[in-house]
Amino acid sequence: MPRYRLTIEYDGGPFCGFQMQANGPSVQAALVRAVEGFCGEKVVIHAAGRTDTGVHATGQVVHFDLEKSWPERTVRDAMNFHLRPDPVGVIEVRLADEDFHARFSAKGRRYLYRILNRWTPAVLERGRVWVVRKPLDAEAMHEAAQALVGLHDFTTFRDAACQSKSPIKTLDVVCVRREGEEVRLVFEARSFLHRQVRSMTGSIVEVGQGRWSAEELKAALEAKSRQACGQVAPADGLYLTGVEY
Amino acid sequence: MPRYRLTIEYDGGPFCGFQMQANGPSVQAALVRAVEGFCGEKVVIHAAGRTDTGVHATGQVVHFDLEKSWPERTVRDAMNFHLRPDPVGVIEVRLADEDFHARFSAKGRRYLYRILNRWTPAVLERGRVWVVRKPLDAEAMHEAAQALVGLHDFTTFRDAACQSKSPIKTLDVVCVRREGEEVRLVFEARSFLHRQVRSMTGSIVEVGQGRWSAEELKAALEAKSRQACGQVAPADGLYLTGVEY
Repeated sequence: MPRYRLTIEYDGGPFCGFQMQANGPSVQAALVRAVEGFCGEKVVIHAAGRTDTGVHATGQVVHFDLEKSWPERTVRDAMNFHLRPDPVGVIEVRLADEDFHARFSAKGRRYLYRILNRWTPAVLERGRVWVVRKPLDAEAMHEAAQALVGLHDFTTFRDAACQSKSPIKTLDVVCVRREGEEVRLVFEARSFLHRQVRSMTGSIVEVGQGRWSAEELKAALEAKSRQACGQVAPADGLYLTGVEY
Repeated sequence: MPRYRLTIEYDGGPFCGFQMQANGPSVQAALVRAVEGFCGEKVVIHAAGRTDTGVHATGQVVHFDLEKSWPERTVRDAMNFHLRPDPVGVIEVRLADEDFHARFSAKGRRYLYRILNRWTPAVLERGRVWVVRKPLDAEAMHEAAQALVGLHDFTTFRDAACQSKSPIKTLDVVCVRREGEEVRLVFEARSFLHRQVRSMTGSIVEVGQGRWSAEELKAALEAKSRQACGQVAPADGLYLTGVEY
């Protein structure tokens, strides 16, 4: 059975997350329908990151097996045809080894968080950014955020509903920079806890607005308590941008 | 009567252009409603550029007069409140001299045209870019497009419905550059003919895809005939990004 590895893109807005749910549309269900639409097979789809309600992706990776073999380009173009009008697209399709697993083979995941830092609401980017009205000091955010890099107990930045066995993770990269009205945060790690990126982003923004010092961000991490977390950033600004294997 | 000058942003997708129409929603009507909503006055709104159906703006400039004076910030925030949920936003409001006119005082207009140059459809940027599947040579486009700079008879790149008295205009800047999968074209001039930017963009893309040589683009301009125009780029990728006074 050929295994297909897909890079996909989606607007998380209309979906209640990647994973199939009883209570609403999911990216996974849209993909399953598209596969069935073009070849009639009902597949099980595995993803590198099970993104939450409203979270976007430009570089999500998924895999599934088909009974029948199809050229990679046919799978890509036929799925894109059947995905319309859902805001989900297949960027690339590659045949993968049978031991490749989109979730378990992943060595790294990269997320981008986009903040529109201005007084007036987002219009063209509505639903695609978090609008923070108070001016942010991106340099102070970047410096303070470096305290989060490395091996830590991230209990503070973990949602109560997180199902991970351990709150201990290694954060490899956090980078904050301003581009005009936008402040962009990039996070890289082998894996993340549930809502970890949004929790860290919200707390880093506390520093950017001058409500927290860098020391207070570090103390929040070291408290290992969900109560120590600052605000949690909304889903709108979050993008899964890439997965490394 | 105080005159207000506004910088506004909009997603052109749901509108049949800037100007009020009998047959559908317009940006102008949304703005008029928002002014009436916050202060009860019915105003006449003038814009720097009467953008076409589906064309976006990040830096459109408009003006109107009010009987009663309000602080600039009040006008901005009250209009943004009343504009919701229309995808139109007021970025900035300034009191203007009584001889300021958004359209007639403008000394320059700047447009951006965004092309997503890849095989697979746009998802996150659907309706915001023109997807051109065949690879584009952005450097060849930039070089060839320089033939359009200067004072010319732009009849070739003028829509049949254009109401301008003369087809003679001066194009100050055309710049084409690639940013990853995106090819961006910037145009600057005192003013443009109807559909001039989309007509020029479509013809420059003919060069980028190798269907036309640079000489053929120049010959199309010199033909001074609408028949010599290449394809006309769709509205989706076009943005009015700024107006100079």
